[in-house]
Amino acid sequence: MPTQRVSKPRRAIKKVVKGPKFSVVLVGPKFQGNIGLIARLMRNFGVKDLRLVDAPPLKEQAWKRAMHGRDILSAARFYKTLDEALKDIDYVVGTSGIPSRHDKKHLRNAVTPRDFTRRVRRVGGKVGLLFGRENYGLFNEELQKCDLLVSIPADPEYPILNISHAVAIVLYELFQPQAKPHRPQKASGFVKEVAIRRFRELLELIDYPEYKKPLTEIMFRRIMGRAALSEWEFYTLMGVFSKAIRKARGKG
Amino acid sequence: MPTQRVSKPRRAIKKVVKGPKFSVVLVGPKFQGNIGLIARLMRNFGVKDLRLVDAPPLKEQAWKRAMHGRDILSAARFYKTLDEALKDIDYVVGTSGIPSRHDKKHLRNAVTPRDFTRRVRRVGGKVGLLFGRENYGLFNEELQKCDLLVSIPADPEYPILNISHAVAIVLYELFQPQAKPHRPQKASGFVKEVAIRRFRELLELIDYPEYKKPLTEIMFRRIMGRAALSEWEFYTLMGVFSKAIRKARGKG
Repeated sequence: MPTQRVSKPRRAIKKVVKGPKFSVVLVGPKFQGNIGLIARLMRNFGVKDLRLVDAPPLKEQAWKRAMHGRDILSAARFYKTLDEALKDIDYVVGTSGIPSRHDKKHLRNAVTPRDFTRRVRRVGGKVGLLFGRENYGLFNEELQKCDLLVSIPADPEYPILNISHAVAIVLYELFQPQAKPHRPQKASGFVKEVAIRRFRELLELIDYPEYKKPLTEIMFRRIMGRAALSEWEFYTLMGVFSKAIRKARGKG
Repeated sequence: MPTQRVSKPRRAIKKVVKGPKFSVVLVGPKFQGNIGLIARLMRNFGVKDLRLVDAPPLKEQAWKRAMHGRDILSAARFYKTLDEALKDIDYVVGTSGIPSRHDKKHLRNAVTPRDFTRRVRRVGGKVGLLFGRENYGLFNEELQKCDLLVSIPADPEYPILNISHAVAIVLYELFQPQAKPHRPQKASGFVKEVAIRRFRELLELIDYPEYKKPLTEIMFRRIMGRAALSEWEFYTLMGVFSKAIRKARGKG
């Protein structure tokens, strides 16, 4: 937990690239907007290497949508064939929205993005994340080059995600294990016990029915536990209780 | 996994809508494409109710991007104000770009989508998922209405996601099948508002400093939101407050 008074050097959040290095490989993308949005997403989740296979030259719409991901777009490399793009890649991961269209073997091999994230940590070297065409996904011969298939669980009635949303979910999952969101300082056991004592005192003062007390106290403790109060929240709540207690005693 | 023509029984994928009912509430969206993409995403993850607050009339681009989510777009409801849109919502969830580093700013004290998914299973009734403006997110007075804030962990250097990607990740998480714990009946929006009113009354009576009131009230709302109180817990807590209020008034 970070100390409160430090404001400048914030805690480093580790990038996705721990262990393997990730590349996003777009195979046959057509829409400029999607390419731009994907560059932005890569920036959001700390993945830098973008490879474009059989893609159109970048136009205004791509640059516009990339927002702060423009540097990723400028550094993007173009390839005519998938084989060229995968030359230095050690582990090829295909994403597939509609496994039914392909060989059943692939279907059996598909894992969820979450499962993939768990597995990929054991992999070293360079990992290529393949995303296929907007209208057709990856062809069979492209899927055959993949060491692993990832498929995003979705409503069977309409499981086909927009390509940038598929990228969003896969990169988000990869970012998860290392990401440490801000956690406010949690109240210590001591502070919590004081708060619960105050609550008990309050019950006492308001002539709360004796037989109800134990359960109500447990309830209070459970609510505090589930809400995972920060120190500040505990102190504030205690402040309210203390004032109420003083008032009830006629000393407010 | 979806298969259009398999005869064998496929593994059941559970819909999001088990337990609480979800609504996606877009506050002040500007771009047609985003509205359309979000309707498509809702279709992908089985969420049907779309509410648009202060939104432009739907145009071609929205319908085009919605793909198979067009039925969701046609059924979308328009509201002038957020309050109108939230009238029948029991549990309001805000999404926010950057979690605060300071505990005191309740407004921006958030949980991850994964953590949210775990918590929300205990909630009943209608859950409103709020997504803010493309350029500004949710305003402070909108965040104040939220029972819980969700924030997507991303690279601190550029954590701001495109709105449809934020929706993608939140709905994806909600769609993930999970073990279902025993779920006690959860408090409705109405009961919750009554409890919050009681708390406010208590603050009034104990001469709580005026300047502290707004933040302390938000704190209370957020604690209740994070703890996801059952009806019984709400009534019990309200009982304690009512007694304390009577006592403070000298009528105890």
